[in-house]
Amino acid sequence: MLREIFENVRERRPVIHSITNYVTANDCANILNACGASPIMADSKEEAADITANSNGLYLNIGTINDSTLEAMIIAGKKANELGHPIVFDPVGIGASEYRMKAAEEILREVKCTVIRGNISEIRKLASGKGTVTSVDADNSDRLTADNLEDVINSAKSLSTKSGAVVAITGTIDIAADSKKAYLIRNGNPMMTTVAGTGCQTSALVTAFVASNPDSTLEATAGAMSAMGIAGEMARDRLRCVDGNVTYGKYIIDAIYNLTPDILESGTRYEFR
Amino acid sequence: MLREIFENVRERRPVIHSITNYVTANDCANILNACGASPIMADSKEEAADITANSNGLYLNIGTINDSTLEAMIIAGKKANELGHPIVFDPVGIGASEYRMKAAEEILREVKCTVIRGNISEIRKLASGKGTVTSVDADNSDRLTADNLEDVINSAKSLSTKSGAVVAITGTIDIAADSKKAYLIRNGNPMMTTVAGTGCQTSALVTAFVASNPDSTLEATAGAMSAMGIAGEMARDRLRCVDGNVTYGKYIIDAIYNLTPDILESGTRYEFR
Amino acid sequence: MLREIFENVRERRPVIHSITNYVTANDCANILNACGASPIMADSKEEAADITANSNGLYLNIGTINDSTLEAMIIAGKKANELGHPIVFDPVGIGASEYRMKAAEEILREVKCTVIRGNISEIRKLASGKGTVTSVDADNSDRLTADNLEDVINSAKSLSTKSGAVVAITGTIDIAADSKKAYLIRNGNPMMTTVAGTGCQTSALVTAFVASNPDSTLEATAGAMSAMGIAGEMARDRLRCVDGNVTYGKYIIDAIYNLTPDILESGTRYEFR
Repeated sequence: MLREIFENVRERRPVIHSITNYVTANDCANILNACGASPIMADSKEEAADITANSNGLYLNIGTINDSTLEAMIIAGKKANELGHPIVFDPVGIGASEYRMKAAEEILREVKCTVIRGNISEIRKLASGKGTVTSVDADNSDRLTADNLEDVINSAKSLSTKSGAVVAITGTIDIAADSKKAYLIRNGNPMMTTVAGTGCQTSALVTAFVASNPDSTLEATAGAMSAMGIAGEMARDRLRCVDGNVTYGKYIIDAIYNLTPDILESGTRYEFR
Repeated sequence: MLREIFENVRERRPVIHSITNYVTANDCANILNACGASPIMADSKEEAADITANSNGLYLNIGTINDSTLEAMIIAGKKANELGHPIVFDPVGIGASEYRMKAAEEILREVKCTVIRGNISEIRKLASGKGTVTSVDADNSDRLTADNLEDVINSAKSLSTKSGAVVAITGTIDIAADSKKAYLIRNGNPMMTTVAGTGCQTSALVTAFVASNPDSTLEATAGAMSAMGIAGEMARDRLRCVDGNVTYGKYIIDAIYNLTPDILESGTRYEFR
Repeated sequence: MLREIFENVRERRPVIHSITNYVTANDCANILNACGASPIMADSKEEAADITANSNGLYLNIGTINDSTLEAMIIAGKKANELGHPIVFDPVGIGASEYRMKAAEEILREVKCTVIRGNISEIRKLASGKGTVTSVDADNSDRLTADNLEDVINSAKSLSTKSGAVVAITGTIDIAADSKKAYLIRNGNPMMTTVAGTGCQTSALVTAFVASNPDSTLEATAGAMSAMGIAGEMARDRLRCVDGNVTYGKYIIDAIYNLTPDILESGTRYEFR
């Protein structure tokens, strides 16, 4: 089934309006190109609605948010809602400041998001207001284990019920859940956490997949997460001992470029809960 | 002749003030370094005039423009005009929003640009107000073919007459035209369209070439476009089957670093119209 | 001794709040990850104090400064001072505009910095108000030679006395000085100057090292500079003839990823003055 999901991305070549942080914007643009989508980054409130109207999907990421880009996100989000375009929201580092938490809450109040994608600490914070997150990385105390897996799945489902969005959590096991059903995806490699912005890139990829599969949001989200994980595996296989996190990051995007629907279909490892 | 053009870049090492989008700023800085120039990025209106005064050429790119950076561009542009510094203008994605179109028109009204560089859709939009452009990529309906080549050359010449700038169009065939004469350059590789920001980088390169060859703007523009195309060919030759668009993009800049005046002279493929 | 300095970075994994330019932010984030630290970039005044409070060190870089990010830097800096967090300040291109010079002076007046890191032209400008710097690169007239080495060391020591900060100068020889003692570090490779942002990355690395070694600021600064130089040597050894400045830059970060305390200890070449 993931085969068709990815074929749709390659065929439809969706234009993705991205309002995202400047730290990883280049990698997000390149991973969108790599999967067959076409990126346009534009964070000015004066043009946010126009750009969204000319795109097929909207990606919102608060990694370096400020009052001006927050306003642009809400304008773009409302236009996307009006036009029925899917929106993927990435609450980068929401635990790290009260401002970021409030911005995330405002976005979720004003804009109906299609998917919310974060690491386990970010999603927990968003779901409950609790949890320790002081950086853009998942906190050790939030580590996914056999013991807390059920809890995490339930909090993903409950955030999905509350928000109406598919909830996507990346980590040692990736989770994509709506209110009833959860995909558990076992692709990827631990070294992915050493590359700045693999989370942002996953969210960008989810936007392209969801925009190309309007009737299969949950499956498209799971497909994008699995694609990213498989790319992480393919890239790991290429590394030589002198390579480090930056070469690894570049190889991940290269792998998305070379990924085919067949490789995705045969390489994915998921189960339902 | 391109040999001398490029020798001048390597010898004069021009400082290029770049007010450009944050998505591809790093690649633009590195390609400027690679060709022998020295980049300085600064988009604050408080310092725009000073930075321009201390530079040898100005590069304006509206990829992630907002009211504040637009103001900085106009201040810097007027200072560059006053001092006789060349200005290269890249109207990224002008079809994607009314705001972007108006910003481009304001820049061209307030600032006398030396070169305007865009893809075929962007230049058509700028020349006529017509054409479909909903992203930063050229639209399929604007594809350069044997049938419309004369038309495109004529619209480049006519925009040059109207604006007083050399007009540079990148695509399957690159075109550099003033009001009378056009270079048609047949270097490059189709995979260049999969790398975010090859257009932005070409414009940055044009700025360095033009700043180093004040009396040969058209030739310098053609030289930079040919250099970029040859770099795209050299980089393509290095690629292995597991490499993708990101590695390709890095290799293009590497190739500019290793490009010599002799390689440019012997590798260029151009004709006049 | 550098062995322990670097072991502390790898063990403590400090969160580094970076308010830096968008041109090299991605490389700074990745080099922080590579050395074992965790980056968070956030330049909005609304959250600057919170983010600093949740971090272990603060990195301020004026590469693309504007009024809004300057305000954020001062808010973050004051919070860091209040909490006793180390602050590394990088006065990128201060000679290139009056605005940038004044911003640097305001930061140094309002915030007590732990380390100031620049190239020789930037540090001379900051120390004396004199010197020619029209770009982000060191000026040729400021070239470090056997003849002016003593002078440069003395101006580093005197800026340290004046500012209370350790002063770090990168160049053909790196210098790290407090008011009494100076490290002269002979690691690195001339090709490092062709990569955009190696200076910014060195400052980011210094922040991680200093944040992990609160009682050894001078040694930690020297350790980070030596680590960067050794990474430049390791990366140079990997280059093939077709590689250029971009591949070289990626390999430098890869080398930091693979650097061990033992390699640092055995590869460092320094003396005292």
